[in-house]
Amino acid sequence: MRHCPVEDRLGIEDLAIAYCTAVDTIGDIDGVCALFADDAVYDLTTLGLGEVRGRKGIADFFAGAFPTMAHNAHALSNFAIVSYAGDTASARAYVNAISQGTDGSEMALRARYYFDVARGGAGWLITRLGMEFLIPPA
Amino acid sequence: MRHCPVEDRLGIEDLAIAYCTAVDTIGDIDGVCALFADDAVYDLTTLGLGEVRGRKGIADFFAGAFPTMAHNAHALSNFAIVSYAGDTASARAYVNAISQGTDGSEMALRARYYFDVARGGAGWLITRLGMEFLIPPA
Amino acid sequence: MRHCPVEDRLGIEDLAIAYCTAVDTIGDIDGVCALFADDAVYDLTTLGLGEVRGRKGIADFFAGAFPTMAHNAHALSNFAIVSYAGDTASARAYVNAISQGTDGSEMALRARYYFDVARGGAGWLITRLGMEFLIPPA
Repeated sequence: MRHCPVEDRLGIEDLAIAYCTAVDTIGDIDGVCALFADDAVYDLTTLGLGEVRGRKGIADFFAGAFPTMAHNAHALSNFAIVSYAGDTASARAYVNAISQGTDGSEMALRARYYFDVARGGAGWLITRLGMEFLIPPA
Repeated sequence: MRHCPVEDRLGIEDLAIAYCTAVDTIGDIDGVCALFADDAVYDLTTLGLGEVRGRKGIADFFAGAFPTMAHNAHALSNFAIVSYAGDTASARAYVNAISQGTDGSEMALRARYYFDVARGGAGWLITRLGMEFLIPPA
Repeated sequence: MRHCPVEDRLGIEDLAIAYCTAVDTIGDIDGVCALFADDAVYDLTTLGLGEVRGRKGIADFFAGAFPTMAHNAHALSNFAIVSYAGDTASARAYVNAISQGTDGSEMALRARYYFDVARGGAGWLITRLGMEFLIPPA
C-alpha cells in the first residue's frame, strides 16, 4: 500500500470526527451534507435502512432523522488508513455511540465505520460510508 | 483559520490526554496543576460547581475532590483543533468517563471538553477548560 | 525524554490499534502474532492468567481463547508515548472494551494498556504488553 502522508492521514481522521460532530450536533443538515461528496453513498444497510444516495438523499434522510433524535454521542476511536492512492483513500474507525430519541428510547452502539474518501477542492470528502456491528445490537 | 502544524496539534492533544491521565491517577494534585496556566479558569458550571480560578484554586479544588474519588476512567476521543493562532489555540474533544466514589457511587459521563491553551515555556498549558454534556446525566 | 518523531508516534499508535483490531476480528491467530516480536511477553497477570511468552505461546493462548469469544470491541484512546529511544519505545493507552463469550457471558473493561515496542524489519512490533484496570471489574 502507498504510504499515506501525515497531513492526509490527519485530514481524513478530521473528516471522520467531523461526521460524528455533525451528527451529534443534531439539526444541522447542511453541516452533515458538507462532509459528503455530491454522489456519495451513505450505506445504512446494517441498520436495515438501505443505501442513501447523493448529497440530496442524505439531506432528505437527516431531515427525517434529526427530529427523532434528542441526544447523540458518537465517540470515534481506532482510526486506521486501510488504503491510500493520493486523491482517494479508505479508512476504518470504531464508534462507541449512545443515541437518545425524542420518544425516550436509547440505543447503544459498538460498531466499525468504513469511510471511502476523496480529495475535494477544500479538503477530503466522504464518497461512501458504511458500518458493521462489533457487538450485535441488544 | 490559520493552519495548525502537526507538532502543535499533537502537542495540544497530548495535553488534553495528560489532563485525563492526571485526573484518573487520583491524588496527584501537582500533576494536575502542572497542566494549567497560573491564571487558568477551570469551568465546572455544567456540574453546578461554578468557575474555579487559578492554579491555586484548582489545587484547592482537587485537594477536596480527590479524597472522594475511588476510581476514574476518562476516555478522550474526537479531538479537534477549533482555532489556532500560533501561541494560543482552542480545541474540543469528547469524553466518555466513569467515576466511582469512595462512597460507592458511580457516575457515567458523555460530554464535550473545550480547551483553551497557550504555549508556555515547556509546552502547551490549559488556560481554560469547560465542558458540556452530550448525553444528559441520568 | 528523547523526542519521538511524528512518524514513529503514529506508527506505534497504529500498532496498538492493530492489536485491538486483531483481537476483535476473532480467529485470526496469525494476524495477532504478526504484531508481536518473537520473544514478546504478553502479560495477563491482571486477568489472573500469568505471563504468556513468545509468539508461539501467544499463538497457543489465542488458539484456546478465540473459540470462547463471540464478539469483541476494544476501543483504544488516550494514546501516549511514555519513553522513546529511537528503536525502542514505551507507550500507554486506555481501552474501553466489551467482550461477549460464546457462553453468553459479557465482560466490560476499562483499563490501561502498557506497550513496550521495538522497531522490526517491517515496522514496530510489541515486545511486551501489560494491562492494569482503571475501573475494577464488576
